[in-house]
Amino acid sequence: MFKRLFSSVQTGSKYSSAYKNYLKLDNGKIGSYMHDIPIEYDQTSGLLNVVVEIPRWTNAKFEISRSLEANPITQDQKDGQLRFVHNLYPNHGFPFNYGAIPQTWEDYTRPSKFVSAYKGDNDPLDIIEVGSKVLEVGQVLRVKVLGSLALIDEGELDWKIITINTEDYHASDVNDIYDIYHVLPGMLENTREWFKNYKKPEGKPSNVFAFNGEFKNHEDTMKVIEECHKNWKALIEGKVTGAKAPKVSNATLEETPGFTTFDEQKLLVKTNAKDEEIPQEVNRLYFFNN
Amino acid sequence: MFKRLFSSVQTGSKYSSAYKNYLKLDNGKIGSYMHDIPIEYDQTSGLLNVVVEIPRWTNAKFEISRSLEANPITQDQKDGQLRFVHNLYPNHGFPFNYGAIPQTWEDYTRPSKFVSAYKGDNDPLDIIEVGSKVLEVGQVLRVKVLGSLALIDEGELDWKIITINTEDYHASDVNDIYDIYHVLPGMLENTREWFKNYKKPEGKPSNVFAFNGEFKNHEDTMKVIEECHKNWKALIEGKVTGAKAPKVSNATLEETPGFTTFDEQKLLVKTNAKDEEIPQEVNRLYFFNN
Repeated sequence: MFKRLFSSVQTGSKYSSAYKNYLKLDNGKIGSYMHDIPIEYDQTSGLLNVVVEIPRWTNAKFEISRSLEANPITQDQKDGQLRFVHNLYPNHGFPFNYGAIPQTWEDYTRPSKFVSAYKGDNDPLDIIEVGSKVLEVGQVLRVKVLGSLALIDEGELDWKIITINTEDYHASDVNDIYDIYHVLPGMLENTREWFKNYKKPEGKPSNVFAFNGEFKNHEDTMKVIEECHKNWKALIEGKVTGAKAPKVSNATLEETPGFTTFDEQKLLVKTNAKDEEIPQEVNRLYFFNN
Repeated sequence: MFKRLFSSVQTGSKYSSAYKNYLKLDNGKIGSYMHDIPIEYDQTSGLLNVVVEIPRWTNAKFEISRSLEANPITQDQKDGQLRFVHNLYPNHGFPFNYGAIPQTWEDYTRPSKFVSAYKGDNDPLDIIEVGSKVLEVGQVLRVKVLGSLALIDEGELDWKIITINTEDYHASDVNDIYDIYHVLPGMLENTREWFKNYKKPEGKPSNVFAFNGEFKNHEDTMKVIEECHKNWKALIEGKVTGAKAPKVSNATLEETPGFTTFDEQKLLVKTNAKDEEIPQEVNRLYFFNN
């Protein structure tokens, strides 16, 4: 299915600030999760490739780094503290597998084509994967795009693209956002509620959504993905000037200015490090009235 | 706080049919989870001792064995298969810590005093612990009793006693069932819904409740606990004749016919065994309309 096979290589202990999870290409070299996995999207079938950052039912806020060489997955920090999302009862951590679409970018320098009041959050497009399997940090898989939700997170546009693993029990039963209401009842309502509330335990207000929180269907969502893939193309071709834009170094795109060979010896300082313990506080339950 | 300190000792691999988790007394000897932990209930404060069978967010159906010598915790089996509860979206496994009240028994030989249409399920009283900490299999702790729900499970009365760990963040904020609606909103509704539906993925009908599914308050619940403690007293004193009644062998109740010394060499066949892997199927999500 993939033109290339991918794996992950880790340096530093998981749940520590030293943790970095790098993409490993089939030639054994390090690549970038943002640039070196081809998106391979198929307009007709709605299939494309994604990378998992956060497995379902876990709390650690892992994400592809914009600023580090080769864009490894690291644990987000806030005020010098490792970030864990809180448990919004009855959810346990993230209620879905969560990740990103490679070779996409939500441009933070210009207003969005579809939600013109907002600029992007400067990250690859986020995905929610609604299947039953618990996926792994750094896993690359093929999914079917079903729809999307336009979250406005602290003033930035931050699309959540709803997808399902092509190898899921229900993959052949769902083709568009409306199918989820029948096949996975309660999933969309809970997902929106979760994004609305998930920063409240940190003392922040509820999040809001564009389009009154309506989910977009498959067709509209494919247009959003196309726009963000184009944004990424401009970025990787060196046509974007933004001081905070993601690092564009990559190991496979020979025509681009960022094409390079990553120095494995420099990047992989300490492999096979033992996981740090997750603090007991992370298990705390939080409650909200709707 | 406890008159005695308790720990656990394991034989056989977790998630295998050989798994047995025995109570260990502070004199190093094996005891019974059902008989050798004093209930120590305090009518005024509503405090008593419980033992954890199933940690929150896990699926394996561990329970105190009626039929095995010394009543170890084992994983329930159905048709020769180890039992795991299904995930009722958005819940992950059991949405609460789950366990039992030692020195209680829901008598299966006589109609219940409070729900006279039904007899008991032949087990110690079940508890739900609603606190934030994720507890451990075999852990003994002191809880505050808040209320209860009278589940009718396949024709048997099976009370669920709602409690909170005395060391929880919210322990001092909740004293009766009504407080949960304010301090932990959504918890009671989700708990009832979960018990209603949790056997449906196995193809069974919804469970039903006595009292139209109303939660009983602290006062009424203490009466239920007293009744079941009396039932247990009759059992342990040899006054019950029931072929299926739990084993009454015990290591601390010198006046009772079952008083004995458990043969550790015979019971602990293989300690420090590695956990078996939990089947991927256990992660499957199930959905129900209300």
